[in-house]
Amino acid sequence: MNQCGTITAVFEFEIKQRDGRARTATFQTPRGAVTTPMFMPVGTQGTVKGISPQELLEIGSQMILANTYHLMLRPGEQLVKAHGGLPGFTAYPGPFLTDSGGFQVMSLGHMRKISEEGVVFKNHLDGSRVELTPERSIQVQEALGADVIMAFDECPPYPAERPYIEASLDRTVRWLERCHAVKTKDDQALFAIVQGGVHEDLRLKSLEATLPFATPGFAVGGLAVGESKEEMYPAVAFTAGRLPENKPRYLMGVGHPEDLVAGVALGIDMFDCVYPTRTGRFGYALTDDGRLNLNSSAPRTQLQPIDAECDCYACRHYTRAYLAHLLRAEEMLAPRMLSLHNLRYLHRLVERMRVAINGQQFHPWAADWSERYFHGNVPGWFTSAFERSTQSEI
Amino acid sequence: MNQCGTITAVFEFEIKQRDGRARTATFQTPRGAVTTPMFMPVGTQGTVKGISPQELLEIGSQMILANTYHLMLRPGEQLVKAHGGLPGFTAYPGPFLTDSGGFQVMSLGHMRKISEEGVVFKNHLDGSRVELTPERSIQVQEALGADVIMAFDECPPYPAERPYIEASLDRTVRWLERCHAVKTKDDQALFAIVQGGVHEDLRLKSLEATLPFATPGFAVGGLAVGESKEEMYPAVAFTAGRLPENKPRYLMGVGHPEDLVAGVALGIDMFDCVYPTRTGRFGYALTDDGRLNLNSSAPRTQLQPIDAECDCYACRHYTRAYLAHLLRAEEMLAPRMLSLHNLRYLHRLVERMRVAINGQQFHPWAADWSERYFHGNVPGWFTSAFERSTQSEI
Repeated sequence: MNQCGTITAVFEFEIKQRDGRARTATFQTPRGAVTTPMFMPVGTQGTVKGISPQELLEIGSQMILANTYHLMLRPGEQLVKAHGGLPGFTAYPGPFLTDSGGFQVMSLGHMRKISEEGVVFKNHLDGSRVELTPERSIQVQEALGADVIMAFDECPPYPAERPYIEASLDRTVRWLERCHAVKTKDDQALFAIVQGGVHEDLRLKSLEATLPFATPGFAVGGLAVGESKEEMYPAVAFTAGRLPENKPRYLMGVGHPEDLVAGVALGIDMFDCVYPTRTGRFGYALTDDGRLNLNSSAPRTQLQPIDAECDCYACRHYTRAYLAHLLRAEEMLAPRMLSLHNLRYLHRLVERMRVAINGQQFHPWAADWSERYFHGNVPGWFTSAFERSTQSEI
Repeated sequence: MNQCGTITAVFEFEIKQRDGRARTATFQTPRGAVTTPMFMPVGTQGTVKGISPQELLEIGSQMILANTYHLMLRPGEQLVKAHGGLPGFTAYPGPFLTDSGGFQVMSLGHMRKISEEGVVFKNHLDGSRVELTPERSIQVQEALGADVIMAFDECPPYPAERPYIEASLDRTVRWLERCHAVKTKDDQALFAIVQGGVHEDLRLKSLEATLPFATPGFAVGGLAVGESKEEMYPAVAFTAGRLPENKPRYLMGVGHPEDLVAGVALGIDMFDCVYPTRTGRFGYALTDDGRLNLNSSAPRTQLQPIDAECDCYACRHYTRAYLAHLLRAEEMLAPRMLSLHNLRYLHRLVERMRVAINGQQFHPWAADWSERYFHGNVPGWFTSAFERSTQSEI
């Protein structure tokens, strides 16, 4: 269905190296090439909370995610468009990805009513009635001007009844068709989203209906919504293993460091999550030794940085004691610096994975990393993900 | 009373140019020279709220103020000392000034009891009983390790009865003597503080008792505490005009842009105030046209920067509409960027005043600046300050 040759050219996805199911690649976007696997910081309201664009570039950010739902409601997509789109509005000069608004409608919209047409909901800001349809989502995303835009989908909650998930994924496919039909811009890649919950047959059904759209990339949706890791990763493996080799694969809303490592093992290329900034605001710092709680008493007198191996501004300049003081004193610099560190941690994590994959050392690297990260108690779901990484059929 | 030759050498204050009572100068500190007039950002709890040390340097900050009262109570001065003092703790590599804690004891301490010995008060954080004396203040300030430390004084509230102000300033002089006596470090300049409220005879009394200490600098204290500008500026003029020419003069807790301009006209060299960061957090931006309220409706659609003449990160990257959006969305980047802009505005303001003074153009510069800033309605107190600036006796 991709009728426009230029789209394929711009959004070329060139695999550099494979290591099991993991791979490194370059993905061309109108605002520059990105290297995968990559983690995308989340700028929900047009800002990665507390972090400047200059800092995002300094810590190795590539593509930034922004939320259609939030920006449509405030300040409205037309104001963003008047700035020349998200790069002009936010001053981040690199590529963007916008979600479709579907997920937020489900999680934030009040009194939502889902129909074949779309979703009607109550604006969480002012209570007004808002309608979001596939057509409206694409219209908003075209105004926001991201490089990658997402098809309008329904992400069923967890748990949900099988019949509901099945009806929902059928509708999501029809919505994808409508998104595809109304899309007008060649400089935006529309990614389709595969749903199906944790059920292999429903995932397969969604895949079979979605793949023919031959979009420049595919997302694995409907996961990390409350199910266990033991349920989630087989579904990731099953879905990712059936997506085209030569297109980027995006695991939406994921995740924690261990999720990035397991996801990469299963052939995922793109991740996004509010976790690094949110947990940073709560006083937690990500490290190879696990999550450091700067609210606890020990760091208050520790004169070492959060992470001696980290090259972020916080780790180059501050002791744990200082950051713990800022947290206790409720100083803005604390969430700012912990968010910066955590984003840098995830960017360094994918950088290290890319190096390991390129050197065909991803599995031994991940074994070392996980042994330390999980303090010797590597969970079964993680080990299983790596077993699947080298199986020919998953 | 200054018995140590090295102090005088290190803290040399060299006047470069005079223009009326205004002057530019270089003040040598152990952590480098600063040029005056200067504005000192306030880092109450060991951080200028929301701003990194790198940003402070980029916007032209020189000396940073930190608060003895706050840091003594949390995290405790010994932790700061364990970092090698404030530069190691905060990662700001330039000079610091610490206040004595006296002002905060009066404004924040609960159930305080002032005696000849010092002040006993209830810690505002945990309710514990804390004593602050001249000796303890110097001990804490030596542990914090700032380049300039302040004598422990009482700043009477406004309004206060004359007899109270007089008794208080007498005690403040005795406290100064005790501070001077216990000070042990040659690499810290102790500044004395002149009190006396808005009463010329009491100011004179304080001056006559304080000047013999021949400290490396003097502060004008007890102003900007609620009195009108019409009362305040004659007291500034009277006091500053009687301080030694060859020592820096510090007007404590001041101020707004117009206060910096009027203060410089009266021979003030150093200023500090939480105003630029506090008003920034509330959504206000300082400009030559006055204060811009980004909470109001007009900026929401304005695609120009806060201030086209400003070179701060916010003005180089963001529109008013974007910043107004961040404010409405309660995003951390809003207070961060508005604080940065406002600090840069005050730093640029003193930079422009230094250029004007060096070129003997301070009065015409200030006339132009004030005409625009006050929208043609330059207040009498401001005009009077400039009249006093060129009088030989004030």
